[in-house]
Amino acid sequence: MTIKKSQSRREFLYRSSLAGGSLLLAGSPNLFAQSKSGNRIKSKGYAAVDTSGKLVPWEFERRPVGDDDVLIDIKYASICHSDIHQMKGHWGAQQYPQVPGHEIVGVVAAVGKNVTRFKVGDRAGVGCMVDSCLECESCKSNEEQYCPDTLFTYGYPDKRSPTGITQGGYSTNIVVRDHFVVHIPDNISFQQAAPLLCAGITTYSPILRADLKKGEKVGVAGIGGLGHMAIKLAVSKGADVYAFTTSPDKVEDILAFGAKEAIVVDDTKKLAPYRGKLDYMISTIPFEHDVSAYSAMVKPYGYFTYVGMPEKFEITVNNLGLAASRVNFNASLIGGMEETQEVVNYCADNNVLPKIQMIRAEQVNEAWKNVEAKKARYRYVIDSATI
Amino acid sequence: MTIKKSQSRREFLYRSSLAGGSLLLAGSPNLFAQSKSGNRIKSKGYAAVDTSGKLVPWEFERRPVGDDDVLIDIKYASICHSDIHQMKGHWGAQQYPQVPGHEIVGVVAAVGKNVTRFKVGDRAGVGCMVDSCLECESCKSNEEQYCPDTLFTYGYPDKRSPTGITQGGYSTNIVVRDHFVVHIPDNISFQQAAPLLCAGITTYSPILRADLKKGEKVGVAGIGGLGHMAIKLAVSKGADVYAFTTSPDKVEDILAFGAKEAIVVDDTKKLAPYRGKLDYMISTIPFEHDVSAYSAMVKPYGYFTYVGMPEKFEITVNNLGLAASRVNFNASLIGGMEETQEVVNYCADNNVLPKIQMIRAEQVNEAWKNVEAKKARYRYVIDSATI
Repeated sequence: MTIKKSQSRREFLYRSSLAGGSLLLAGSPNLFAQSKSGNRIKSKGYAAVDTSGKLVPWEFERRPVGDDDVLIDIKYASICHSDIHQMKGHWGAQQYPQVPGHEIVGVVAAVGKNVTRFKVGDRAGVGCMVDSCLECESCKSNEEQYCPDTLFTYGYPDKRSPTGITQGGYSTNIVVRDHFVVHIPDNISFQQAAPLLCAGITTYSPILRADLKKGEKVGVAGIGGLGHMAIKLAVSKGADVYAFTTSPDKVEDILAFGAKEAIVVDDTKKLAPYRGKLDYMISTIPFEHDVSAYSAMVKPYGYFTYVGMPEKFEITVNNLGLAASRVNFNASLIGGMEETQEVVNYCADNNVLPKIQMIRAEQVNEAWKNVEAKKARYRYVIDSATI
Repeated sequence: MTIKKSQSRREFLYRSSLAGGSLLLAGSPNLFAQSKSGNRIKSKGYAAVDTSGKLVPWEFERRPVGDDDVLIDIKYASICHSDIHQMKGHWGAQQYPQVPGHEIVGVVAAVGKNVTRFKVGDRAGVGCMVDSCLECESCKSNEEQYCPDTLFTYGYPDKRSPTGITQGGYSTNIVVRDHFVVHIPDNISFQQAAPLLCAGITTYSPILRADLKKGEKVGVAGIGGLGHMAIKLAVSKGADVYAFTTSPDKVEDILAFGAKEAIVVDDTKKLAPYRGKLDYMISTIPFEHDVSAYSAMVKPYGYFTYVGMPEKFEITVNNLGLAASRVNFNASLIGGMEETQEVVNYCADNNVLPKIQMIRAEQVNEAWKNVEAKKARYRYVIDSATI
């Protein structure tokens, strides 16, 4: 990995996180000075204006379509728990107004002169990233999400943006560098493709890396937007899936998704019978929890991947539990663009589809409350026509 | 891994640790009722009597030598930071008086009738374990340390012990089941063999598992008793070792141990130039620290092993840092008996020897203070003749 000297936002985030901090203060006044006003794109969206977790309608401008850019008229955007975490400042201070949303699908409305991969009218999707350096070791190895300069879809300083930061997909349109746009094939609906752009890729990437063999026992903890996709993806790979949830009323759905067992964890003692039994496990639980109790279910020298992002990004691990289980614990952050295209194609071709609930834009605040109350079943999708 | 139904002490510890607790209350009144008084072995030692971290001379009795037991006249015992942690109650409440010490060497003084591996006069060593079930999957795979019934060398309930708990090696003798005694070869001194029984095996086991290739870059964090052995062992395997210490005055020693670089970490920023550069890393730091900052030095998809045991066994990990580094994080607990014999033989044959400081028994309290003040260079060895 190249150590970059630039004081990029991403580098700053990494350094902060490496230093144990979690400051996510986005934007600074001087960034605004360099933006230009010509050919800006008018957009409407739902934005957070403070840490309350309440979104309000907001009109704003996006940057002009550059030579390498794609303008997408957004048709649908789905709701990820991360949207709530970031807007509420759980991961650090934010600049407002800020439009969340990083599960975005729509139709290409314009392309820059260098763009060859897309043309007007193409079905297109955007996930958690909208730009990166494309030159570093991470970018070259198709892991743009680990580039020191990755520009995430909302809340990241972007001097080209009239608002100074990237603005997400709970909106009518978006301007994105072509490399960060994926094709949405015809054999999947826009609505069902949207959640694949974050929930899908975040679970697909580590599951692919786990190289599951047919009949292997795979644990999935936290059965929300990510977890229900993890179940479906692992089942599609031939695994026997053991799903761990705190919501008894999800059991029926879990079994319908193809899991072999649904375990209601009202007490971590419920995990004991599975200790050392699973070949691989993925946890999507988006808050601090007893990680060691879950990871101990993996067979000695197996792997446990954590994809949840709790407040301050911090998790406490019991080292004795970790030693006793001999588990290899790792975390994973979405996936690269090549893999993102792959998961969309895979899910379309194999009928691995998220279970969604359609909402109108004005229902977004109610939907967020439901997500926090574990009531989403399993992904809310906003119809952008209602913005 | 077999899930055992028995309410063993070990199982209890695991369950506590899995449940996030760390209660280590050793012994219970009914355990004493079953001990017998015939042929007990008189012993003298230095014991903790409370959480003060101060040891006092103490006379006590050990169990009679059973059919599968070996009685060892202790010649030397060395001081491990774990001794201090446990006596001070950092890992949970303790029963006192309790004699610490799990790096023990001496001469066999008696053997039970079933013992064939040892005879009176043999040079012998005892580490962190003195018994286990020998029947479970862990025991059968030479990982007795993960047996649900492992009896650790001090402070663990043992109904055969007149004091109700196991008593460690800061003493004149010890009675141990034969399987848990290793041979000390003639080509290593007793004094230098002692630290191998914990510091040696704890670092050797994960280093072996890391399967280092010649010239690979290995990081070692925390250069105390364990860390200095980790450097020497990795160097002996042909690795280029990068040693991270908070003590500037250890630099000269570290280079003498064969490390390629000694990095003084007075600020975690000092770690930045090494980010993503190391093939493997082992941390021996025995207290809560910014683990993610260290693990980020490992190359993407590499392995980081934590062998330190901080207070409450808890470490806080920055999940974003872990994701960004794509490291496989694991912990390791000593090693099995076969490996323990192996490390002793390996170090003797390859002249991989700890740097030790001899002390008399009455200096033990001063030595403990030095260990806590990072002043040990690098392992204190108690001459048992002075007890």
